[in-house]
Amino acid sequence: MTEYEHILVKRDGDTVTITMNRAARRNSLSAGHLAELLAAFREAGTTDATGVVLAGDGPVFSAGHDFADVAARDLTGVRELLTLCTDVMKTMQSIPQVVIARVHGLATAAGCQLVASCDLAVAAASAGFALPGGKGGWFCHTPAVPVARSIGRKRLMELALTGDVVDAATALDWGLVNRVVPDEQLDEAVAELLARATRGSRASKAMGKVTLYAQLDRPEADAYAIALEVMAAASQLPGAREGMAAFLEKRKPSWPD
Amino acid sequence: MTEYEHILVKRDGDTVTITMNRAARRNSLSAGHLAELLAAFREAGTTDATGVVLAGDGPVFSAGHDFADVAARDLTGVRELLTLCTDVMKTMQSIPQVVIARVHGLATAAGCQLVASCDLAVAAASAGFALPGGKGGWFCHTPAVPVARSIGRKRLMELALTGDVVDAATALDWGLVNRVVPDEQLDEAVAELLARATRGSRASKAMGKVTLYAQLDRPEADAYAIALEVMAAASQLPGAREGMAAFLEKRKPSWPD
Amino acid sequence: MTEYEHILVKRDGDTVTITMNRAARRNSLSAGHLAELLAAFREAGTTDATGVVLAGDGPVFSAGHDFADVAARDLTGVRELLTLCTDVMKTMQSIPQVVIARVHGLATAAGCQLVASCDLAVAAASAGFALPGGKGGWFCHTPAVPVARSIGRKRLMELALTGDVVDAATALDWGLVNRVVPDEQLDEAVAELLARATRGSRASKAMGKVTLYAQLDRPEADAYAIALEVMAAASQLPGAREGMAAFLEKRKPSWPD
Repeated sequence: MTEYEHILVKRDGDTVTITMNRAARRNSLSAGHLAELLAAFREAGTTDATGVVLAGDGPVFSAGHDFADVAARDLTGVRELLTLCTDVMKTMQSIPQVVIARVHGLATAAGCQLVASCDLAVAAASAGFALPGGKGGWFCHTPAVPVARSIGRKRLMELALTGDVVDAATALDWGLVNRVVPDEQLDEAVAELLARATRGSRASKAMGKVTLYAQLDRPEADAYAIALEVMAAASQLPGAREGMAAFLEKRKPSWPD
Repeated sequence: MTEYEHILVKRDGDTVTITMNRAARRNSLSAGHLAELLAAFREAGTTDATGVVLAGDGPVFSAGHDFADVAARDLTGVRELLTLCTDVMKTMQSIPQVVIARVHGLATAAGCQLVASCDLAVAAASAGFALPGGKGGWFCHTPAVPVARSIGRKRLMELALTGDVVDAATALDWGLVNRVVPDEQLDEAVAELLARATRGSRASKAMGKVTLYAQLDRPEADAYAIALEVMAAASQLPGAREGMAAFLEKRKPSWPD
Repeated sequence: MTEYEHILVKRDGDTVTITMNRAARRNSLSAGHLAELLAAFREAGTTDATGVVLAGDGPVFSAGHDFADVAARDLTGVRELLTLCTDVMKTMQSIPQVVIARVHGLATAAGCQLVASCDLAVAAASAGFALPGGKGGWFCHTPAVPVARSIGRKRLMELALTGDVVDAATALDWGLVNRVVPDEQLDEAVAELLARATRGSRASKAMGKVTLYAQLDRPEADAYAIALEVMAAASQLPGAREGMAAFLEKRKPSWPD
């Protein structure tokens, strides 16, 4: 894998782990850091890995944007930065791998957005989540986009308006994360959920993941128009053919992809 | 009621019960089975019944599509099958009756989609729910459409990507079903909830149900544009007139429809 | 503040409290009452207050529309009434202040809609919530619009079709309210949550609130298109500038607005 300055990328079996490695800056998302995350997710997307773990080194998962990299920018400059940040979030959802967040410590602002944008998320019991722009001077407008699509509206309003931290148990109750485990079991729980989420035909699942994001947040009839045509086409692909044949012949499938 | 091969249709008082009756095939949804479900829901929709129960005979509620009926189909054939399946789901939401799922055993893939597409659902404690395409070769694209609209995004991703079964208590916590009861109380609980959901003016409720589905999943202003105009028109209909008159005259209403 | 007939409006520090004061009519929403609520929210919106509390006097929060004011209206008249009612709901979401519902007793039909339309809601343990049109003759079409956007679909269907009351604990579990507290702690809990929700730059938060409502219920890419441009523009405003400068200079911010 490519060498980076702000992140560590490691391939282990079928899993690529991308670790934010700016502990001294609380893994804040400077333009340089975001550009590397974007490159790393794109690169992981071209590999035959089946899963990607997003983790953070140091005391927090990520503190969001790096004000030192925002304060001096004019409108065009901030728009470029936010476009880059949004590209990272969209890329996590468009690569064929299952992307899972490994959340320890605080995930705030765009750091919370990273968690909401991953397909799955496992949090340590000591993790916390916040959209702190709500109590500051720069509201968390874009972080609220995927967070709003994971939790209910009243909960979103509380998170976004108060800016206060909610604990991992609350995040689980609200549906922002899939699992909360004792801190020392975090890696094991991430690996366990990712293993279950990456079985089966890789090509089929990649199409499945992307189609899910395409059909969400639309009127149901529009969603069906998308999902039906994809599912009909998918039935003709090798993975579906093999899966159905194996089922009907009562044998273990051998995924062609 | 019409005689069918794959289902049993029974009228009892104000309730039509449609029971999937392919226990030997785990109530899988072959084209023949789906065509009968579509006909039965349409027929029930023309009656003066106020509620429809969807149930399954045998050890599972429904295992979803019948691979024996999918494997040999080409693209056009699968598209026809999925269109038929989607028509069943949409018909359940468009008939004037309240449709309630009586879920025992497993509801998987399009079987889980049936549960998500009913207006209401009561599950036995032993029931389970899954979108197993996620760990196979044919992703549950269309089943995920109504499931996504009942549960949160992270929960949808877990269900769709892992393909694993979640139990009834989890389905209740996530909002996929309305009630979970001990297995032996399932019929009683279905009847109780359906009785409460079918009171009042039948014509008013039918318009209410259809309008709910029309306004969901849209920006709020679009939803108000739909709901406001329907509600204004509804105020002029006999049910609303009688309801308001009875309230103001402190008497029991006599629904005209 | 202006004197009203059906409501009491009081300013205390940074908070405007609007109290529905038609206890003898269960705070039902006649055209006159709605017109005053609209005027009061608009007036509050022009002040430098940071928060608005919506409360009700007497045994219930609000019983919804006043049938005595609906029964005699023709289609045009009801459309006018519902348009006025919808304007109240939309105004609560468009004024710059954080609007919080203080819910005691029953909040039914358009009364429940008021709760769902506030940014935040705190309920007394004895509160109850219902969309009673479902068991009557005039379905709660418009109240269901914001309620549907706060709770899951199956829960919405149960609330809307049965018309039955759910208790405060259920409303909390479903995400319709943010807090449930013992009745005697209601005012204190409202004040505490509102205080946390009104910190920071007032102008930044006002833009944040309105943008949240603009991006909700849309496909994620559409939401990002809105949120990204607003957030880039917001970065150039005094609140964001001051917030970032204070953070980088490790001092307390002094909000310019």
